[in-house]
This record gives sequence, structure tokens and C-alpha cells, in this order.
Amino acid sequence: MLEEIDIANPKTKNEYLDYYKRIRTRTEELAEPLEKEDYVIQAVTDSSPTKWHLAHVSWFYEAFILKAFDGGYKPLNEIYNYIFNSYYQDVGNPFPRPKRGTLSRPTVNEVYEFRKYINDSMFNVLENVMDNETLRTLTVLGGNHEQQHQELMMTDLKHNFGSNPMFPAYKRTKTLDTKDAEPVPNMTFIQFKAGVVEIGHQDSGFAFDNELPVNKTYLNEYRLANRLVTNGEYLKFIEADGYTDFRYWLSDGWDVIRRDRWQAPLHWHKINGEWHTFTLSGMKKLNLNEPVAHVSYFEADAYAKFVGKRLPSEGEWENAAIISGVRSTDGNFFESGYLHPKAVDIGRANEGKEVLQMYGDVWEWTGSAYLPYPGFSVLAEGVSEYNGKFMNAQWVLKGGSCVTPIDHFRTSYRNFFQSDKQWQFTGIRLAE
Amino acid sequence: MLEEIDIANPKTKNEYLDYYKRIRTRTEELAEPLEKEDYVIQAVTDSSPTKWHLAHVSWFYEAFILKAFDGGYKPLNEIYNYIFNSYYQDVGNPFPRPKRGTLSRPTVNEVYEFRKYINDSMFNVLENVMDNETLRTLTVLGGNHEQQHQELMMTDLKHNFGSNPMFPAYKRTKTLDTKDAEPVPNMTFIQFKAGVVEIGHQDSGFAFDNELPVNKTYLNEYRLANRLVTNGEYLKFIEADGYTDFRYWLSDGWDVIRRDRWQAPLHWHKINGEWHTFTLSGMKKLNLNEPVAHVSYFEADAYAKFVGKRLPSEGEWENAAIISGVRSTDGNFFESGYLHPKAVDIGRANEGKEVLQMYGDVWEWTGSAYLPYPGFSVLAEGVSEYNGKFMNAQWVLKGGSCVTPIDHFRTSYRNFFQSDKQWQFTGIRLAE
Amino acid sequence: MLEEIDIANPKTKNEYLDYYKRIRTRTEELAEPLEKEDYVIQAVTDSSPTKWHLAHVSWFYEAFILKAFDGGYKPLNEIYNYIFNSYYQDVGNPFPRPKRGTLSRPTVNEVYEFRKYINDSMFNVLENVMDNETLRTLTVLGGNHEQQHQELMMTDLKHNFGSNPMFPAYKRTKTLDTKDAEPVPNMTFIQFKAGVVEIGHQDSGFAFDNELPVNKTYLNEYRLANRLVTNGEYLKFIEADGYTDFRYWLSDGWDVIRRDRWQAPLHWHKINGEWHTFTLSGMKKLNLNEPVAHVSYFEADAYAKFVGKRLPSEGEWENAAIISGVRSTDGNFFESGYLHPKAVDIGRANEGKEVLQMYGDVWEWTGSAYLPYPGFSVLAEGVSEYNGKFMNAQWVLKGGSCVTPIDHFRTSYRNFFQSDKQWQFTGIRLAE
Amino acid sequence: MLEEIDIANPKTKNEYLDYYKRIRTRTEELAEPLEKEDYVIQAVTDSSPTKWHLAHVSWFYEAFILKAFDGGYKPLNEIYNYIFNSYYQDVGNPFPRPKRGTLSRPTVNEVYEFRKYINDSMFNVLENVMDNETLRTLTVLGGNHEQQHQELMMTDLKHNFGSNPMFPAYKRTKTLDTKDAEPVPNMTFIQFKAGVVEIGHQDSGFAFDNELPVNKTYLNEYRLANRLVTNGEYLKFIEADGYTDFRYWLSDGWDVIRRDRWQAPLHWHKINGEWHTFTLSGMKKLNLNEPVAHVSYFEADAYAKFVGKRLPSEGEWENAAIISGVRSTDGNFFESGYLHPKAVDIGRANEGKEVLQMYGDVWEWTGSAYLPYPGFSVLAEGVSEYNGKFMNAQWVLKGGSCVTPIDHFRTSYRNFFQSDKQWQFTGIRLAE
Repeated sequence: MLEEIDIANPKTKNEYLDYYKRIRTRTEELAEPLEKEDYVIQAVTDSSPTKWHLAHVSWFYEAFILKAFDGGYKPLNEIYNYIFNSYYQDVGNPFPRPKRGTLSRPTVNEVYEFRKYINDSMFNVLENVMDNETLRTLTVLGGNHEQQHQELMMTDLKHNFGSNPMFPAYKRTKTLDTKDAEPVPNMTFIQFKAGVVEIGHQDSGFAFDNELPVNKTYLNEYRLANRLVTNGEYLKFIEADGYTDFRYWLSDGWDVIRRDRWQAPLHWHKINGEWHTFTLSGMKKLNLNEPVAHVSYFEADAYAKFVGKRLPSEGEWENAAIISGVRSTDGNFFESGYLHPKAVDIGRANEGKEVLQMYGDVWEWTGSAYLPYPGFSVLAEGVSEYNGKFMNAQWVLKGGSCVTPIDHFRTSYRNFFQSDKQWQFTGIRLAE
Repeated sequence: MLEEIDIANPKTKNEYLDYYKRIRTRTEELAEPLEKEDYVIQAVTDSSPTKWHLAHVSWFYEAFILKAFDGGYKPLNEIYNYIFNSYYQDVGNPFPRPKRGTLSRPTVNEVYEFRKYINDSMFNVLENVMDNETLRTLTVLGGNHEQQHQELMMTDLKHNFGSNPMFPAYKRTKTLDTKDAEPVPNMTFIQFKAGVVEIGHQDSGFAFDNELPVNKTYLNEYRLANRLVTNGEYLKFIEADGYTDFRYWLSDGWDVIRRDRWQAPLHWHKINGEWHTFTLSGMKKLNLNEPVAHVSYFEADAYAKFVGKRLPSEGEWENAAIISGVRSTDGNFFESGYLHPKAVDIGRANEGKEVLQMYGDVWEWTGSAYLPYPGFSVLAEGVSEYNGKFMNAQWVLKGGSCVTPIDHFRTSYRNFFQSDKQWQFTGIRLAE
Repeated sequence: MLEEIDIANPKTKNEYLDYYKRIRTRTEELAEPLEKEDYVIQAVTDSSPTKWHLAHVSWFYEAFILKAFDGGYKPLNEIYNYIFNSYYQDVGNPFPRPKRGTLSRPTVNEVYEFRKYINDSMFNVLENVMDNETLRTLTVLGGNHEQQHQELMMTDLKHNFGSNPMFPAYKRTKTLDTKDAEPVPNMTFIQFKAGVVEIGHQDSGFAFDNELPVNKTYLNEYRLANRLVTNGEYLKFIEADGYTDFRYWLSDGWDVIRRDRWQAPLHWHKINGEWHTFTLSGMKKLNLNEPVAHVSYFEADAYAKFVGKRLPSEGEWENAAIISGVRSTDGNFFESGYLHPKAVDIGRANEGKEVLQMYGDVWEWTGSAYLPYPGFSVLAEGVSEYNGKFMNAQWVLKGGSCVTPIDHFRTSYRNFFQSDKQWQFTGIRLAE
Repeated sequence: MLEEIDIANPKTKNEYLDYYKRIRTRTEELAEPLEKEDYVIQAVTDSSPTKWHLAHVSWFYEAFILKAFDGGYKPLNEIYNYIFNSYYQDVGNPFPRPKRGTLSRPTVNEVYEFRKYINDSMFNVLENVMDNETLRTLTVLGGNHEQQHQELMMTDLKHNFGSNPMFPAYKRTKTLDTKDAEPVPNMTFIQFKAGVVEIGHQDSGFAFDNELPVNKTYLNEYRLANRLVTNGEYLKFIEADGYTDFRYWLSDGWDVIRRDRWQAPLHWHKINGEWHTFTLSGMKKLNLNEPVAHVSYFEADAYAKFVGKRLPSEGEWENAAIISGVRSTDGNFFESGYLHPKAVDIGRANEGKEVLQMYGDVWEWTGSAYLPYPGFSVLAEGVSEYNGKFMNAQWVLKGGSCVTPIDHFRTSYRNFFQSDKQWQFTGIRLAE
């Protein structure tokens, strides 16, 4: 897995070409199981059509690399700059996000032609301007950007399929075979010392601007759960009428669950009296030992209050990950092929002293608002809108999920969503 | 054309089979120019995806004929009864209309399989239960229902394509070649006498429930314009700042045009200072002689006030059509192949004494609310929800449009839309 | 009562002065039972604060009479022309209607000063310019306008008080003492002949523009109920689960009752298992013999379908009123002092051959859309916005209510509301 | 001012009685300049009617003290427990906040009777149960709660009056006489050292739960502006088209300013080409030297980016306040009588080394999300909903404002609002 990490940070021209090709190819592999119709739709505003993702990540190279580094570059179609811009005001007014699913054209085939056109242009630039440092930086940024959208493609497809009363599967995996018979290790709380610690991206590899700079934060003594909260544990909250007891809920959350009549995590369905959950492999009976997923911050926070605990801060989480020496190679990321969170193997429990499931499975809500690190500065013009402008009313999530590409992940990675979002693989780790 | 009328009212078993096949085949021909992606989308709530139309008209036979007349009938897929029900509460809770464009499954191919399955089942029933009068009635109702959706498919596709910044064409027709050089005949007003007249469906052929029964109405002496209002005439209203002068507008209309910032009919675009209009053949320069289309009732009424006229009542319109002896065979319906309203040929003007363009081109807004005729009764249970439950806050439109199948049309036909709808081919004929 | 009619149509200067004073005084008498706080609020957008009504009717004289006929007229406060304009675009941009209840200033006292200022100015104009016919016309229009707002004041106060969980009474009247012990006459249906009839305002007295001109309409033979539908009859619809059975409801109505969870007419409350209704005299037990009130068109139409009847057209209603020779003096109007609909006296039944309760009690929903009469023309500039611009998506109501001033009423009077409105005293008469 | 602090923390029975009376009397003094109509209205959902404030703070004693400590207590009116509950789910379902301005009853006089009833009951309890510690704690909590609402009354009245096109003054103060001729001291940045500091409420006096416990936080070296940003400085941002340049704005903020067409702080009006600002003393010409007020977080953050600075964290602000030894006695709080932010006296500049305007004038937006301090716990049952349930998507503000009662203020005070709120006196201090 060391190799994986290396390939995330290319150095030579060949490594850059390989890096670029590998990520581009992966994106298209993700779309292989789809019917053409599946590329087009957008079940909710939060999600985007698969063909939009395929084209948008290509547009990113056009807007920020090809136009800057290839004097002779001619866009394949000028209108794509409008349609496939996500939110970059700096390069023009973007097409309205909620309407992405109303465009049948360009067709899927035309989008693949666009991808090929961008690839040919990028190969050309990488061959010829490789020694420009900004180009190299932007190429890796473009790769990481595309990997983010690989993850979004999976979560958006899950939402699209899960909103269809036919509940089609994306692809059959081993997911459906899991049993909830074997017990999971008890939840224990592992102690960490108080003091000033350093968090943020520490090595020389790639990181987003929001992971920088390395910064000091003071932590009180704290204790972190050895594993994620399971479906079975969360079910007890539901069965104790947690969704109708205001005492557990933030005021804004209480408004949301009453307005939208939430009664369980997203993708949970009670069918003939039995709880099921929709997965990328289709509908299956709820496995009580798997980590609970698709809970909003409001639900994660309410559950923590229900059991008399709290969510960890991002500093606490990151410090625990560093100190414990857990390895991302152990994580259930996209590459494991499950595309669903996995129950802890009882054998792994190690007397409750090991911090398990830190990487992969589900993004873990922290109790930290998504704010700039002290000394934060945005990227260069053009891509300056990448992260900073979203630092309002969102929470940090840590650890990656079962659909995150493993070489896209870093311990310092800061994902962020608003309090009411459920459509990602998001789960709960407790602290106290 | 007499034959066309005959084929709309089958009598023998073979005629029924031919009738059914002809309509089913036409629906699929309409979809031939499409890419698969075009079948899926729904640009606005008013419209529906093409594949939904294809399946819904098939579901109609299943719900109201096959389940009733074929004891051994088994639905291909039970869930289709939920997904493809439009608004029939009587046969179950319909899937929410605004979300029709969020379903990638069933795929287009699966929808065609569903059509074939329905066809085979219908052939079987028509072969065997042909002597049942209700079956015969419902089969023709099903045919007319499908023809309504043929028209909706065209208008919805126009809306979907016209909402895409790429402005793709549905199909190249002769439309784009029209010139606005030749003058149209002057607008004159033809006089009709006062008295009690009869309107409503008068012969023995098929009609919807809302065209019945024949009923008497009193008309004052009135005068009706010899032709439709043209783009050129309507443009004068725009250029006289008609869209910013409250005096022409109904109060509700004034609210709408300010809220949504309307400045012209739907599908009009000012490109480099010149007015264009989007057609099913793509974008073209505005032809000043063609009838104005895609205006709402609010706009039709405001324009009439601007020129000191009014819209005709449905009685006035229908009486004029009957008295004048205009023939629907002259109309620019779907079969003419233009898929766009046509300018009057100057040669046809006949010294301003002939009522032109009554049939086809555009649905003509009347100043009559869509209400039940005296003695109206709904259809039998099941299809009783067909028309009556929409008799609230809508206006009657007469005459058919350039995408109406000619054998679907009758003089007594009553179309109906709310005051703010623009997405159909709707236009203006004046009265005084 | 002939005198009442005379005083509604003044001729001499003294009659005009008396007319003006009488109406102005009545308005202020209506407000006498109020606390200052009651003048300020606006419980829903449909209603307006009492002090707004008091000032707006005064502003009407200023805007359309004083500024035109008194060369030296100076407004008391220029800003009132903005605050107290209801919807006349022609005389400036009106203050937003939904925000009328957010203005504490001008105070109630200042509004009364404004009324006095307008009165003094009007006395002056009436003394000096009385021979101008337009002035005379506008003065009577202003009087009728103020009388409309007298009725609105009462219905808006009822809504405001009825929305307050303390349910305060406007004023104790005899209303609370009514018993539902005495039976009401059976509902019978009285027959009227087919033919062309004339409707619209026929004499030389005042009428609004929308009652003109007299016009012919053809009526089929029809039968009209001898009395209004009672609370007891309507309760049977509720108890038969009428509010949850889609078959009775227009499609738009079905959407409304599900969205807003309607289960009964406005102002009905089930308290400790017993139905009560809020009146201007406070909460009282539901009297089953009183006419049902505060039903929307959707409910009136659904009820009619439930009992297999329909609502009358406006022509049918008006023709029956004329032919039957019922006298408005018999009606339960504002002057009777009940401020609530009254049960029919069993003695009045007259073997079911008399048409009862045509005037007063409740505005009766008709099945006629609110449209211009043939030949309709708006009033002169300035007041041209009075009625015409609301002729969209509303229904005609006939007969006046228990809070309509008797001398404001005419048989040809056309009131109009949208299908979902319940806040007026609106009820149901059946036809077949 | 030591006395002021003492009176905020009573010890003996007499001190408690004095404390209670003093706060209750102040509340009523605040309402003295009002007309009755002014008590009733609610211009926006964020604000509440004055009479609601007067009653709600009284209800607080009833709900949490009188019912618990006075066995014989009978509510004056049971319905008040519904109407005047703000958001305490634990003591019943509260009346909907957006509808507080639709209630004319209870009248203002009845509300004053309610206040007197509560006072008499509280005097009785304080006389007799004074030795109960919970009672003592709740009495001071009730006093602080009432003081919070004293501030809200002023800001809500400002909003109500400022939304009225007549722009009435609350009360004439010295505010209007201020001149912008005298220069303000230059903005300089004062340096503070890095290290772990303690923040939170440190002494034994009263504090809200959210100020506790004292906790450690690590601060990098930072520099804090010596004074607030002035109107003149902010005006440069406006004149540089700051409101139309996306680069300065958070994404959510950009959406808000475009949707609501913001072009300046709340209460700014351009009249005949000159900027004015509405104050509690009425409209006045904008004084360029006064601190900018009524800016949202979005505007504060955008302005900071415009000048290349940032907002301080709450730790930085609080540490600077402690280290600098500034005294709240110097602050422009309610007691100074201005009811408006004041320009710094040039004489106070002290060579730019003194931190000025830390207390009073305007609440200062920090860049810290409103989150629980490590170890935070909610108050006892009943009042447990006081602060904790709002810890979502809000920002901390520090320092108090010109309408904060001085003895209600503490350095550790944490106010909190959402990013788009402008209706409070909120301003900007820069850091770097």
C-alpha cells in the first residue's frame, strides 16, 4: 500500500502521465455498470447526474490548465464552459445546479468524446510543459478533484437508485451476504492525554488548502470510542422514540425532523415489519453489526446525547489517529470492493484497546465547525474558490468512507457537510 | 380526409384492431428521432419524460381494460401501476408528478417491452371480447388518451430542448425555410348574428365527457377576427412596453410577469439584437408573419386589451366554426409535418370574408372558464376522474395545434389550461 | 325599506351630504367595541388591519375626488398615499399588502384625525362642486367602496379574533342564545322554466361596473333549493369522511385540503368532543339549524357532489330571485344585529314553495366563473382598476351576508373569491 | 462601577428583592415612550412584539419559579402558558413565533396586569423561600433573562420603526447631534503573544451555562485592531462595488445578497443621493466616524477579506480584553443614553496602543462558531433548553452593544446569531 501512497504524489513526467491516466480510467470504470438512462438523472439538488460528473471533472482541466498552458487550445464546445462549471464565478456564471438533471444533451457519448478530447489535450500539455511547477500542482489538484467526484458519483448514484421505487442495484458485491449473527466487540473508550498538539497536513505530499497550515490546538484529556456506532445500537435510539423526544435534538434539527417526518436514517425502509437498508447492491435486511450510515449531524448529535456522550472534535480525532498509528491500509475504502460499511471482526477487538474503523467505512461527524485553520490562505486565482468560500455553517467529517479512493485519502483530510445532510456515507463515533 | 374521420370511429373488430395498432405505432414513430437520454428528462413540472408518456398510455389500457376484461391478466411489473399512474386516485396513489424525471428505471428498452406486453394483451382482448360495448368504448377512449399524450410528447420535448442551452432540434422540418417577406392578409372582423345556438359534440362519433351534452347558449351579435394574431403584431405590443404597463394586465398576471420577469412569449430569444424563436427544428429567426405561439392567457388577454379587442367566448368560437363551414382538413395539424404554426397564404385571404386558421397551428385561448356544460356527467367509475375534477381556474382553448393528430380533433374539442401556462402551442384570435 | 333604497341613491345636495355622513359615521360605529390593539393586527394576508380599512376608505376620496375637484387640496401626509393605497397602480406603487399589519404608525388617533381631515375636505367639495356629475358618481362609488370595507372589517375582525387562542368576542349579540331544538323546513327544490333571461343591474340606481350591462343568457329548466344547507346537513358530510374521500373533490381542492389538513369549515372547533363554532359574539356550541358558513368553493362543490346535486349558476340564482319576488328587507343583513347566519323559522316554510334565505346570512357560491358580462367596460381612468383586473380564477357569489349593509346590497351584486377562500361568511345553496 | 457589579449578584434577601424590582422596573421604563399600537407589531419573524416581551419575561418566572416554589400558585390565565412560552418544549408546545404579531389580546393593559400579578407572587416567594439555593439561582437567571429581552425590545423596536415608511423615532436622544467632522484615531493593530490561555467565566458571579466551564485554548501570536471599523471605512467597500464582487463573499452569503438584493447594511438609506441611517432617534445623515452597525456575519467577513484582514476568534477577543484591562465602565452601553454606537474620541487614541470600543457600541462578530466549551453541561431540567440547543450554524459575538444593560454584561458573555442576521447592533473588529 506504500506504492498507493507514492502514486498519489507523482514526480517524474512518466509518473504524472500514469497518475493522470490512472485516475481518468478509474472514473470511467465506475460508470461501466450503468445504463445510459442512469447517467442523466438527479434525484435531489444535492446530487448531480453521472454524465455531469464525467464532464465537469474534464472541464476542470480545460478551465484551469489547458486554457492557461496550451496557447493553441480550442474548446470542443464553448457552451460546455457554462454547463459544466460547478461554482467558479471567476470563470463565468455557472449553469444552475438544481437543473443539471434537466439536460439530455450533450449525450453520454458526446460526454465521452469530450473526455477523450481533454485527455488528448492533457497528454500534449503534460508532455511539453511538464517542468512548470504550477502545471504540476494543478494536475495533481485536478486528479484529487476528480477523485472527489468519483466518491460523489457513487453517493449520488446510491441516492438516485434509492429514490426509485424499483430500488435497482448499481452492482452486485459481497455486501448482500453479510450476516449479523457474529457479535461485534464491546464499545470501550480509549484515553488520550491533554496538551497542545499539532494537526493539519504534515508531510510534503498533496493536500487541499483547507488542511493547511499545520497548526497547534489545545486538547483536554479525552476518551474516544474504539469503534463506530452500529445499526443495532442506533436502532435502540429509534425504538426508544428518540425521533419524537425533543430533549435529544438541536432546535434546528427538531424543526427538520418534524417538517420532513424523519424516523430513521436515509435508505432505511421498514418492509413487512422488518428493517431493511438500501445498498449499492440493492435492498437487504438491516445488518445490526454494521456501522450506522447515512445519518445527518442532527442525528449523530442526538444519538450521542441519548447515550450520554458527545462527538469528538476534529483535533481529538486526528490526534487519536496519529497517536494510535492506525494505518489507512486497513480501512474499508472503495478498493475493498464492498461499497458498504463493514462490521468489525470480533477477532480485531484486542481487548478494547485498539481504535478500530478510523479509516474508511463512513465519514465520521465531528463536533467541530468547518473553519479555516489559523494562517489559512486560499489557492491561487482561478482555483481560489475551491474550499474557502464554503466555510459557513458546516461541520468537519474525518476518516473517509467505503466509496473513497484509498489513495485520495489522508489523515488530515477535512470533509464538510451541513447539519441536515444524509446522502453521503456518514456515521458516528462517540467521545467523552 | 373523410377516411381519417372514419378511422377515428372504428366499428368492426378489424377496424378496432387497426385503430389500436395505428395509434400505438404512431406514438413510437414520434420517439424515433430521439437519443435515449432525451426520453428521461423533465425540464419543468408541467412536462413529463417521453418514456413516462410511452409507459403511461400503456398503463391506461392495463388499469382500465386489461384488468377488467382479461381474467387471466398478470401485470408485467406491479410497481408500474404506481409509477405510471398519472392522477387516478381510484386505482391507487400515483407517483409524485414533479419527480417523474428522477427515475432512470425502467429503462427505455424496458418501457418498449412493457408496450409490447400491453399490445399483445390488448390484441388478445380485442380478438375475444370485442362484443362488449364498454370494452369498445374504453378502447377508443384509450386511443384518444394516447393521442393526447402524442401531442404532449411533442410540446414537452419542445420545452425540454428549449430549456437546454444547446438548443438541440427534435427533427429538421421545412419550418426553418419559411420567410417573412410575403405579407399576410389584413386582419378583418367577420360578423355573426345574435341568438340561441347549440354547442357541444353533436354527432355519434367519439367525444370526451366534457364536450357533452349538446347545450344551448345565448350569443349576442359578435365579430370574430379572420385570422390569428401574428408574431409581427405581437412584437408591437412588446415594443410599446406592453410588459411593463399594468393597465393591460389582469392583477394575477401582473404578479406573474413581475415575479418571473417575462418580457416575451416562451421560446423567444433576443440574440445579438435580433428576435429568434426556438422550434422543434431548432432556433430560427422570428418570422413576423407566423401566428404568435406560446403565449399564456395573461398575455393573450393583455394583448387583446392593448388593441382594444377581447378574446372570443367558446360559444362564439364554436358557432363561427360551424357556421363558416371551415374544414379541419385545411388545418396545419401534426400530419402536415411542419410541427410549427404557419403564416396564412396571402392568396387565401378572400377579401377578408373567410375565417382562416381556425383549425391547427395553435390552440386559441377563449375568454370562457373551463366549466361543466349544463347536464354534464362524468364517465363510469375508474375513468370518472378523466376531465371533471380539473374544472377549476382554467380556460377553454379551441381549434387544435400544429402537433395535434388530425383524427384526434373535433370542433367541439375543449382543451384547458391555467392562465399562466405557456408551454403548449397557444395563440390568440381576437373578437369584438 | 323603500327609504333605504332611496338613501342609497342620493339626488339633492343635502341628500349627498347626508349619504356621505351616514356611511362615514357607520364605519366608525363598527369600530366602537374595539380595543386599540385590535385595530393594528392582520392575522392572515387576506385580511387587513381595522385601522388600515378606516384610512384606506378615506384615502379613496382623497385620491379620486379631492385631488381632482379641489384645486387647493393638500394631503394631510404625503406618505399616506403610499401606505393606504390598496392596489391602484395608476396612482402609485402600493405598500405591500402582507405587511399592513406591521405598521404601528400612523396611530389609531392619527387615523381618526385623517378621517376628520378627509370629511372636512369632502364637505367642502360637496358644498361647492355638487353640480359636477363625475363628482356625484364618484361620491356614491366612494360610499359603496366604504360599505364594502365595512363588511371586510367585520370578516377580518372575525378572522383576527378567531385566530387568537383566547377567542375574544367582538361584541355580545343575540347570536349566542340561539337553540337548535326547533326543526328547519325540509329542503325542497323549486322549479324554474328554461329560456333566455336578462340579468345584470336593471334600474337607474348605483351599481358597480361588473354588474353591467344588462345581458341575456340562456337557462335550461332548473330547480333551486328552497333554503341554504345547514350545519347539521354539512356535519353529515364530515361524519361520512367526506374530507378524506377524493371522489368529491376537485383536483386543486384535494391538494389544498391535504396540504392544510382541513377537516371542517373555518371557525369550527371540536372542544371536548363537541363541535363549536366561533362567532363575533365568541365561541358557541354549533347550532345544527343555522346555515353552514365559512366554507370554501372547494367544500361547497364537494358537498354538492356528496348529495348528488350541484351549485346554481349566477344566472339561475339571479333569475330565481327576480321571479320569486323575494325582498331584501327580509334578509338577515348587518342591520338585523345578529352578525351571524340565522336558522330559517319553521313557520316560514310555506310548504316548501317559497325560496328562503336568498338575501343576507351568507354569500352563496355559484358555479359561475367571475367573468365580464358581454359588453362590459371598466370605469373611467383612475378607478378603472376597480373590478375588471380581478376577472381571473374566481367564482361569483350572490346574495349578501349577515355583515353586509342592507343598503349596499342589490340583487345584481356580484361578489367574487378564489376557490380556497373561507374567511368570508360563505355558504351553500343547491341546485339540480 | 463595582457597585453595578454587586447589584448584578445579590446576596441578602433585601438585595434579591431590590435586584428583582430594579430589573422589572427598568423593563417598563423602556416601554414608556411607546404608543399602544407600538406594543403589538412584529415587522419580521426575528423580532417579537413589545407586549410579548413584557409578558414572556414574566411567564418565565411563572413557569420556572412560581409553579415550583409556591404550592398555592394559580396562574392568572392558563392560556398565557401557551402564548408566552418562547421555545421551551419541556413546559408545553409554544405558540408559533411568526404569529406573535397577530394577537391583539391580551391587551397592553392586561399584560401590565399580568406583570403586576407575577410581581406580587414573586415578592411573596422571595420573602418566604429565600433560603432555597435553586430559587436564588433561578431568580438571577430570570433577571438576566429579562435583561436579554430588554436588549431585544430595543432592537426589535428599531426594526419595527425602521420598517415603517414613516420612520418614527423611539425617543429623541443626543444621537442626532453627532458630527462626523472630527477625525477618529487611525486603525492600528496591537500584538498579543502565542500560548495556551484560559477563557470562560472565571469569577463567582452569575454566568450563563454557555460561558462555562473555564477552559484552555491555544492561541497563535495575533494582532487585534485598536478600534471598530467605521461607517466611512465600510462605505469604501460599498463604493468599490464590494456587494457585486463574488470574491469577497462566502458562497452562502453571495446567494443571500443576490436573492435579497443587499447593497448596504440594514437601516442605511440613500435619500436624495446622500446616505442616511435610521436610529432609535429617527433618520439622520450617516456619520462616517461612527462604528458601522447592523452588518451580518457575511458582510463582516466580506469586509475583512476586502481589506486583507480577518475576524478575531472568540479566544483572541477575550484574551485581548483580559490582558488589556479595558473596563466595561468605559463602554457605550444602554445606560449612556445614546442608544446608538459612538465615534471614538480622537483624544482617546493613545498612540494607537490602547484597545478601544471593546465594550458596548456593537456586538462584534468573531470567526468562531457557537459551540459548547469543553465540559459544557446544560442547566437543570426545565431551563435546560436555555442555550445548548442553539449550538448549530451560529457565530459567537462579543462585547455587548449600545442597548445592552451594563450590569447584564460580562467579558465572558457569548452572544450568537446566524450568518445572515442584521437586525441587532452588530459590527466589525479586524484581526490579523
